[in-house]
Amino acid sequence: MVHSIKNIVILGSTGSIGRQTLEVIHSLPDRFKVLGLAGGTNANLLKEQTEQFRPKYIYCQNCHDTNACTARFIPMEEMAALPEADIVVVATPGSAGLQPVLAAARAGKVIALANKESLVSAGEIVTATAQENRAKILPVDSEHSAIWQCLSGEVTPPARIILTASGGPFRSLTKDEIAKVTPEQALKHPSWKMGTKVTIDSASLMNKGLEIIEARWLFDMPVRNIQVVIHPQSIIHSMVEFADGSLKAQLSRPDMRFPIQCALTYPERLTNLTLPRLNWAEIGKLDFEMPDMDRFPCLKLAISAGEEGKTFPAALCAADELAVEMFLKGEIGFGQIPQLIAKVLDAHQAVASPSLDDILAADAWARRKVTELAGKL
Amino acid sequence: MVHSIKNIVILGSTGSIGRQTLEVIHSLPDRFKVLGLAGGTNANLLKEQTEQFRPKYIYCQNCHDTNACTARFIPMEEMAALPEADIVVVATPGSAGLQPVLAAARAGKVIALANKESLVSAGEIVTATAQENRAKILPVDSEHSAIWQCLSGEVTPPARIILTASGGPFRSLTKDEIAKVTPEQALKHPSWKMGTKVTIDSASLMNKGLEIIEARWLFDMPVRNIQVVIHPQSIIHSMVEFADGSLKAQLSRPDMRFPIQCALTYPERLTNLTLPRLNWAEIGKLDFEMPDMDRFPCLKLAISAGEEGKTFPAALCAADELAVEMFLKGEIGFGQIPQLIAKVLDAHQAVASPSLDDILAADAWARRKVTELAGKL
Repeated sequence: MVHSIKNIVILGSTGSIGRQTLEVIHSLPDRFKVLGLAGGTNANLLKEQTEQFRPKYIYCQNCHDTNACTARFIPMEEMAALPEADIVVVATPGSAGLQPVLAAARAGKVIALANKESLVSAGEIVTATAQENRAKILPVDSEHSAIWQCLSGEVTPPARIILTASGGPFRSLTKDEIAKVTPEQALKHPSWKMGTKVTIDSASLMNKGLEIIEARWLFDMPVRNIQVVIHPQSIIHSMVEFADGSLKAQLSRPDMRFPIQCALTYPERLTNLTLPRLNWAEIGKLDFEMPDMDRFPCLKLAISAGEEGKTFPAALCAADELAVEMFLKGEIGFGQIPQLIAKVLDAHQAVASPSLDDILAADAWARRKVTELAGKL
Repeated sequence: MVHSIKNIVILGSTGSIGRQTLEVIHSLPDRFKVLGLAGGTNANLLKEQTEQFRPKYIYCQNCHDTNACTARFIPMEEMAALPEADIVVVATPGSAGLQPVLAAARAGKVIALANKESLVSAGEIVTATAQENRAKILPVDSEHSAIWQCLSGEVTPPARIILTASGGPFRSLTKDEIAKVTPEQALKHPSWKMGTKVTIDSASLMNKGLEIIEARWLFDMPVRNIQVVIHPQSIIHSMVEFADGSLKAQLSRPDMRFPIQCALTYPERLTNLTLPRLNWAEIGKLDFEMPDMDRFPCLKLAISAGEEGKTFPAALCAADELAVEMFLKGEIGFGQIPQLIAKVLDAHQAVASPSLDDILAADAWARRKVTELAGKL
């Protein structure tokens, strides 16, 4: 059987999702060709990737010796819109993902979206742009990939979404203990191998809050119909409840290559023996508990910003991004992350039905506000 | 919005599945009309159902006063093929379900199939007849409904099926204790409300064995790729593993009205607030363990008959049906059910690619053999 080979562009190829995307492509060599790679600060790794996968196009934030490379250097937004690209993987972390996502959406691309911040901050604009230009957004976040897979073939809109959360490394700590954890402790996720920012967000449950807002846009579901359930084994990646009260769940070992491959091979599924199999003789049990908003106030802040809408999610996202950076640098404590974000949201003068400029302004304002408030801690 | 009203025929309306089908229809009154009801020995209940749902056609095995009824009496096979019928629910228990299923398949009907014995005994003939006549078989068994729901929208054939089993009331008993259980103990199922025969089969795990053979035909899946996992809470109703190693599961509270409604409303899902909702705050955990073939030899016998094929499954099915009857009458012990079936299968001279006559002959032979062997116990 002859298959068409899909041309893949990876924005953020040197990050955790980017590297795992290349692993998937490497394990299915007759199905994919790397067309473009865009990397951030890790120029050495990008060079290695370029030598191994021989993309036609490359973008490097930190490269200077651009002549030494056989690939053509082009800006990230141009790469997101390349006519030959079949799938654009957006794995650029944080708010830097917004412009590339919009570029790919305007170009009507199939977007494998691993950057949640773009949907959290500018969900209405991103989804409307995609719709107008017939771009398709395929989720790469494991929870949203699970929901998307569960919705496959269903003709009636779902009644409820149940997002599962591992609960992170501090699930069993007291509020006081959580306030004092170190970056080293917060970076040790119990089940998932992920980037730095998302690992810290997982420890604070902010990640789950951002995912609620992401799900709100991806699946057109009101925030009040999205429930979070703590499931420490990270085997059920999320669930959908239908009108009749029946549910579907998607399950696998916690490994980001599953949702990545699912988006790349959609609607097919391909055998990939490098992916770990679930062994029911070993599993024994799956646990579930309700999240504790008192010990994990970031989740509550995100739900409230998601319900308010306007520019609150953009402010939340930017404030969190900077607060996490400051925590990792040792400038603030873990317990101060939600304190700073709460103060930023309290002070925020939100704009309804925001334009892209309004969102960028809210983002910039929130960062200034975090810096200002942190100075007074 | 105006919906078309579907005409439903229920064969076996006085049994557990039949009664629950009428409950679903009663709770969605603007969607369904009862066209025909066929009942067995419970003439009084059939009379009540006829008064409440006013079917046009009726069949009653044990009725004598047929003139007192406004509905027209017709044979069960004629009812299975009524031109006005949109869906034929086959809930007749045991081997009595085979001829009505074949009649509905020949008539090209949508068949909501709750009778597993017809597929176990004559899977090849039933599925081929359905295919030739463009009849559709929609599973009503909760496990097969789960698998069917999980396959919705998938374009690549699944790699493996994982059938969940509650484990029945004797999950934690020793082999010796199991051999001595009474009919009263075996009829107390821990999670499901079902008919007598299937409740005893659930206690011996024969039910799960028959379901493996049923799944083999419904989903064209080799027996070796169908795994059984014990899951005592009966919340995950079964799972499908795909080529990439990812799985989907369908979940709900254990209530047969879920798979019944799913088949009746397919491809839609309708809000039905009489169905119980899952509450994740209460669930706490889901347990899993491997089945023990030594304590539950019926499962092993069924897997072996399923792998052998030919007329072995028909002989298994008939031998089990009679052995369960004898156990319920107190004529044999619970431990003697698998002993009798094993001896019947050992003595069976199986016919390959069996015709319907071969299957009926194997069925009759197996029943004679059980009677003969039981006399020598």
